[in-house]
Amino acid sequence: MIFDEVVKKAVEETSGGLAAVIMARDGIALSSYIKPGSAIDLETLGIEYANLLAATSRASEAMDAGPLSELQLTTDKYLTLLRSLNPEYFIALILEPAGNLGKGRFILRVSAPAIVKEF
Amino acid sequence: MIFDEVVKKAVEETSGGLAAVIMARDGIALSSYIKPGSAIDLETLGIEYANLLAATSRASEAMDAGPLSELQLTTDKYLTLLRSLNPEYFIALILEPAGNLGKGRFILRVSAPAIVKEF
Repeated sequence: MIFDEVVKKAVEETSGGLAAVIMARDGIALSSYIKPGSAIDLETLGIEYANLLAATSRASEAMDAGPLSELQLTTDKYLTLLRSLNPEYFIALILEPAGNLGKGRFILRVSAPAIVKEF
Repeated sequence: MIFDEVVKKAVEETSGGLAAVIMARDGIALSSYIKPGSAIDLETLGIEYANLLAATSRASEAMDAGPLSELQLTTDKYLTLLRSLNPEYFIALILEPAGNLGKGRFILRVSAPAIVKEF
């Protein structure tokens, strides 16, 4: 299935890739892949991502900025990339801090149209 | 004053720079600079950024990711970079979609220690 292929590819082809998920904005995952051995808890993350996207959407509206296309978070332990697929779904990729952010962004960007075609 | 210098420099030396602000996490600006002619409403933005950072901090805690260092938002109209200065303050830089993101990130990163020294 294309969803499963995309999330696995995003993790395995990005240096430092830990996990990827295609998710609805209510935090329910459609497809996910966690690199074997990584301790990412995607269920908890889903809820938090949903909250985060809601806050981001409110911020974008308040600044009349148009819909969110990409969100990038850097913390001590992870780099997180979120990319909107449509108003209902997004894809997230979690990397180690030293992961290849540019490659990750590229893979999400080129994968998005193929995912959206399946909806 | 260094705060005023930094926000002006961040906007004027980044191609596509529109506005920059050093702000407390409660949304109150310490110093801001808006490029003449740009229609950015920093007061509204401040409240939204504060909400966004609160949601992001909760997400980071939930994923045990360590403190947030950088947040990047892409919408149709703006690129927004937020960089944590300390647990209380952050700096934000708003660019046009075609703005030089890499230069903006660089300027915020190298300016942060000089700002923090003043607190």
